[in-house]
Amino acid sequence: MDLVGIEQIKQAAGDISGVAVRTPLLPQVWADPDRPLWLKPESLQPIGAFKIRGAYHAIARLAVDVRARGVITHSSGNHGQAVAYSARDFRITAVVVVPDVAPKVKVDAMRRLGAEVVLVPTAERSDAAEELAAERGLTLIPPFDHRDVIAGQGTIGLEILADLPDADVVLVQVGGGGLASGVSTAIKALRPQTKVYGVEPDIAPDARDSLAAGELVPYTDEQRYATIADGMRTHLSELTLAHLRANLDGVVTVTEDEIREGVRLLAREANLVAEPSGATTVAAYRFHGAELPAGRTVAVVSGGNIEPSQLAELLP
Amino acid sequence: MDLVGIEQIKQAAGDISGVAVRTPLLPQVWADPDRPLWLKPESLQPIGAFKIRGAYHAIARLAVDVRARGVITHSSGNHGQAVAYSARDFRITAVVVVPDVAPKVKVDAMRRLGAEVVLVPTAERSDAAEELAAERGLTLIPPFDHRDVIAGQGTIGLEILADLPDADVVLVQVGGGGLASGVSTAIKALRPQTKVYGVEPDIAPDARDSLAAGELVPYTDEQRYATIADGMRTHLSELTLAHLRANLDGVVTVTEDEIREGVRLLAREANLVAEPSGATTVAAYRFHGAELPAGRTVAVVSGGNIEPSQLAELLP
Repeated sequence: MDLVGIEQIKQAAGDISGVAVRTPLLPQVWADPDRPLWLKPESLQPIGAFKIRGAYHAIARLAVDVRARGVITHSSGNHGQAVAYSARDFRITAVVVVPDVAPKVKVDAMRRLGAEVVLVPTAERSDAAEELAAERGLTLIPPFDHRDVIAGQGTIGLEILADLPDADVVLVQVGGGGLASGVSTAIKALRPQTKVYGVEPDIAPDARDSLAAGELVPYTDEQRYATIADGMRTHLSELTLAHLRANLDGVVTVTEDEIREGVRLLAREANLVAEPSGATTVAAYRFHGAELPAGRTVAVVSGGNIEPSQLAELLP
Repeated sequence: MDLVGIEQIKQAAGDISGVAVRTPLLPQVWADPDRPLWLKPESLQPIGAFKIRGAYHAIARLAVDVRARGVITHSSGNHGQAVAYSARDFRITAVVVVPDVAPKVKVDAMRRLGAEVVLVPTAERSDAAEELAAERGLTLIPPFDHRDVIAGQGTIGLEILADLPDADVVLVQVGGGGLASGVSTAIKALRPQTKVYGVEPDIAPDARDSLAAGELVPYTDEQRYATIADGMRTHLSELTLAHLRANLDGVVTVTEDEIREGVRLLAREANLVAEPSGATTVAAYRFHGAELPAGRTVAVVSGGNIEPSQLAELLP
């Protein structure tokens, strides 16, 4: 399988410059002295998550006439917002196909970004998006199963090594695997001795199991949807599994309580509002240090889109 | 009076490089299109506030033999933590004189950073610090009434214009005035047409009144301590008033309810945990737009050290 290379990631870095925020690494005073910790706060991106990088780069790579006809996606989460935001920047149409049970706040957020939101029954989402794409000449921008999307997310890896050239360990979320594929590819190309670990909820650890088996090991929707980490309820694709097999050093799984404590820790000690998915890496650092190498550690905080009421419940 | 100049601020930028985080400007999608907004999140500094800049620079500027004897301060808030953090970096003694009524969490935070904490009755704080300084040869690092501290805080102004060279409006907190003095000095030296506004609680607006009168207009401790913005319960000094008279375009005052809404807004829309003082500028942007010029606006978020329980109460 043709994997994303470092040159594509460097090209993506050029594309997204001035659109995605160049997030800093934030040193953490509460960290274990044997494992100094820096956070990479992607929760501070314009739409509150790293997704802006991959979505923008994928749209930027389209031929001008193709792009002018518009784009479509069927994510109601952070990727949907990222596509809407990026399309607005290019002054093109963005259609987001959303299950009719999606929270109003998410639909409103996408409309506020100028997207056309199409509500359909959950089961019809994917088909509806493909039909609309064909009918209207829109290009589908998938959330992770796409080389340009992976290359865009990989820019996070470039920035980590630019700011901390001797990083020993990088912790990164694995949901669909686009983020982990991009980041691990960038890190291994530039500094192979840096260890890159994926983190996922232990309720449905499909990345851990798929890497062990050497093929996709699916969990049911019911199993996947049991986690509080709503950005990680998806599973790997053949493309992302291939990247992770090539570049990931291991997977750490975290419990639901550890994820909740991660959200608390980030608010209390780092002044960051993180969504549960975004806090999984810090949960792995805090509770699974024994499974990780020592040394200078970077944890990606992938996103911050949590309901204020949920954050308020978790805080005290 | 001899005011801080741009060369001193540039020198400070060199000193603090690699210690203070180079915070990015964060574009805000919820902003008014006529007044696009960027946040400067100083809440992400190692000790959770901008104070690290001034404290570190002031300590860096001491003669080596003087510095080796150690430093002292009598702030129990963010400046105390900043002095402790900076002293640890220089491997020198830091003594923080703290009122014996200070919250244990703040005392613990300073001890965790290696500071020697001396508890005294509130009224004796300043005298005790001076006595200890004389006895032990420690250098007093004041929280704002000091040229090097002002120069350190001014580095925020340099960074704002480096990232957004055509900024039209900058909003900055005024407590003791060190931050506002430094930032306004840097901005006016480099781009005089950019407007710089101070923001303070309307409960005890000593900066507004002092600027109008041309001399220090004091409020009582009781009046000053009535605000939720605990970082702004102090008042200007002759030195900071002189800087603000030279460089500030105006002052906007905000109510306690507006400050609370600012904290909520930052958590909900920007994924930032801000302390009430840190949110005053966003409160001014959100509720006092009519008093401000239009155009590209930057709001400094000065700090994020809020009790999680207080944040939880404010959120929903």
